[in-house]
Amino acid sequence: MTIQSQILGIAQAAKKAASTLCRLAAEEKNLALRGMGAALLKHGSFLMEENARDVVLASEKGLSAAMIDRLTIKEATIQAMAKGFEEVAALPDPVGKVSSMQRRPNGLLVGRMRIPLGVIGIIYESRPNVTADAAALCIKSGNAVILRGGSEAIHSNLAIAGILQETLKRGPIPETAIQLIPMTDREAVYELLQLEEWIDVIIPRGGEELIRAVVSQSKIPVIKHYKGVCHIFVDENADLDMALKICVNAKVQRPGVCNAMETLLVHQAIAARFLPLMAEKYGDAGVTLRGCPQARAILPDIDPATEQDWHEEYLNLVLSIRVVEGLDAAMDHIGKYGSLHTEAIITESYAHAQRFLNEVQSSTVLVNASTRFSDGFELGLGAEIGISTTKLHAYGPMGLEELTTSKFIIYGNGQVRT
Amino acid sequence: MTIQSQILGIAQAAKKAASTLCRLAAEEKNLALRGMGAALLKHGSFLMEENARDVVLASEKGLSAAMIDRLTIKEATIQAMAKGFEEVAALPDPVGKVSSMQRRPNGLLVGRMRIPLGVIGIIYESRPNVTADAAALCIKSGNAVILRGGSEAIHSNLAIAGILQETLKRGPIPETAIQLIPMTDREAVYELLQLEEWIDVIIPRGGEELIRAVVSQSKIPVIKHYKGVCHIFVDENADLDMALKICVNAKVQRPGVCNAMETLLVHQAIAARFLPLMAEKYGDAGVTLRGCPQARAILPDIDPATEQDWHEEYLNLVLSIRVVEGLDAAMDHIGKYGSLHTEAIITESYAHAQRFLNEVQSSTVLVNASTRFSDGFELGLGAEIGISTTKLHAYGPMGLEELTTSKFIIYGNGQVRT
Repeated sequence: MTIQSQILGIAQAAKKAASTLCRLAAEEKNLALRGMGAALLKHGSFLMEENARDVVLASEKGLSAAMIDRLTIKEATIQAMAKGFEEVAALPDPVGKVSSMQRRPNGLLVGRMRIPLGVIGIIYESRPNVTADAAALCIKSGNAVILRGGSEAIHSNLAIAGILQETLKRGPIPETAIQLIPMTDREAVYELLQLEEWIDVIIPRGGEELIRAVVSQSKIPVIKHYKGVCHIFVDENADLDMALKICVNAKVQRPGVCNAMETLLVHQAIAARFLPLMAEKYGDAGVTLRGCPQARAILPDIDPATEQDWHEEYLNLVLSIRVVEGLDAAMDHIGKYGSLHTEAIITESYAHAQRFLNEVQSSTVLVNASTRFSDGFELGLGAEIGISTTKLHAYGPMGLEELTTSKFIIYGNGQVRT
Repeated sequence: MTIQSQILGIAQAAKKAASTLCRLAAEEKNLALRGMGAALLKHGSFLMEENARDVVLASEKGLSAAMIDRLTIKEATIQAMAKGFEEVAALPDPVGKVSSMQRRPNGLLVGRMRIPLGVIGIIYESRPNVTADAAALCIKSGNAVILRGGSEAIHSNLAIAGILQETLKRGPIPETAIQLIPMTDREAVYELLQLEEWIDVIIPRGGEELIRAVVSQSKIPVIKHYKGVCHIFVDENADLDMALKICVNAKVQRPGVCNAMETLLVHQAIAARFLPLMAEKYGDAGVTLRGCPQARAILPDIDPATEQDWHEEYLNLVLSIRVVEGLDAAMDHIGKYGSLHTEAIITESYAHAQRFLNEVQSSTVLVNASTRFSDGFELGLGAEIGISTTKLHAYGPMGLEELTTSKFIIYGNGQVRT
């Protein structure tokens, strides 16, 4: 059997499973989710054995210690995955929710009902716990899922998916509602991305390179974000203590993630007062600063920021700083260099806070809070399957509801159109 | 200047216009819309002159009378376009609407605010009034629009777009918020569809061939529907008078549109009673019937339906009929042959109505009403920019709100993540 026909078989089985899964009640799905969590715990030692095979191969290939750490499944990893299933089971089911019911002048009662998207393809890199987390969210939202993890984690991913599928055999969810692509060939991903008739959406999770490759090959709609070049603008009349605290948090608390701050914009009227205090805090935290000429006039020891710096997602303890004339200049900078991810203003001005919230078109906009809150859990979605920086379908952190769509439902009593 | 650089210039100007337009208040947009409607009336004779050039060329090319009729702008066409602007001005503005405000445990106030998509590309066929209607809806929803009409209507479309642009010179909406591609080359469309950095969504309106060409070339997300193979299922315990009335309406009232019925499914228990009555009504209306073997056993004079008939969007006074075992068989048929557009059930059974509404995954599902109600105006959206049969972003008829997305807005007072 060719890779093409194997992948087609997987996609067709997923679509068939989706047509059953979309009709199941929340209770049936929740029971299955709890069963999956319990099964992962029960087969923990098997999981760790299979994971050890990946870890050995990764060491032989000379992968970095950080990558091997991300790959490794410990007791705690398994407990976290199992807890994830419990938590997702406890979330409200978005499917079947009816909204916007209205009576039309001709008596028709028109509303919208949430339904699953259908079949979701998830393409991700080395962390094997994504296999469990993504499966839980897709099943809860009534979608069949096709998982394609990184080749370094293939034994771990096959073990996790195998355990989850095994529990589905008890019914009523078809076993093929969760499938992992067993081949590690790139061709398998290419073939998957051609199957627009069978797969409704692709969600890639990983570095910019992976995502660009998926977008360029896919005939299926892709929900994605390339990168997070997040900004904080410290306004003229900011509470400087608050600004210091938030700017440290946004850069330092977890620099390797997409909602960390990458560029600090500072109002020129307070730059001379604020930047030395800020630089001291960043010095303590080991942050390397790069500045525009005005910033360097205040902080002469820092390196100059180049044009490229304003585009950069450092994902590291590096920060670019620009002194700006005011709110409009800050918003212009964000419009030009931002990635539509997350931006914050620190201000005590009511008018500036309102303008920033209304006018900045990024997917998450904050006043007086850290960019690190741009996250599905923190924003109250209960879960996060990914972040979108394209405006179609979902924009910003995506929870369960973003894995559904809504159809029109209409109650009539014999109406015809005249 | 090459076509490529001209199209890029148009797209860049549109994106710049969008960044101003997205910040305008509803009152400013409404004033401009009313001005545009008035300008079309004022320049009616110019419009009809330019339109006459298209009509002469179309006659010379030997276009069909029906096509020339669609192309022709009459007094009434201009009045309808102008009225369209008034009506769109009177609709509520979706932009700036805030929903789902909630207080998080840490005190953050999190909500979602509707914002425009940005730049919308509309690719359409010969009816020149689309130029005016689409521009009105895009401007109202805060989006810049790039219009690409059919080559047969180029003089009419340029005249309409020119008048609209002229009124924008009064401000505050940038003139380039409405642009029509002046070239009729196919290359211009191809170049447009590559500009994912500048254009947020493409909406093609026209036949299946046009839409498939757009989808295969586009790097920009496309919202579309290929065709409407709409079904009505007449259940065992339907009110037969109601069923007759609805089935005539759904097929006959306007057979050339996508929400007309193409296949009638009839429960086997009532087929012998219902089909002869139905066939008589359809005979009076000039509808040609094609049936499955069971239908032909009851109506021996009709032609057999082939496998291809179940896939067919006739857009004409032709109907395929299939006798089915019951609700499940009807839903299976819809799942297999339907186009995710619109399906109706005629039934007096509460349980069957609920199952049909819940389980059929098409974008519009009705009980005891004609499929012809699947339309933005009829469903209370106030307007319709198109219909989507892909589940991402919008599903079913699309109104103003579907030309927007929502961002997260967050009010903090110094929160940082721990």
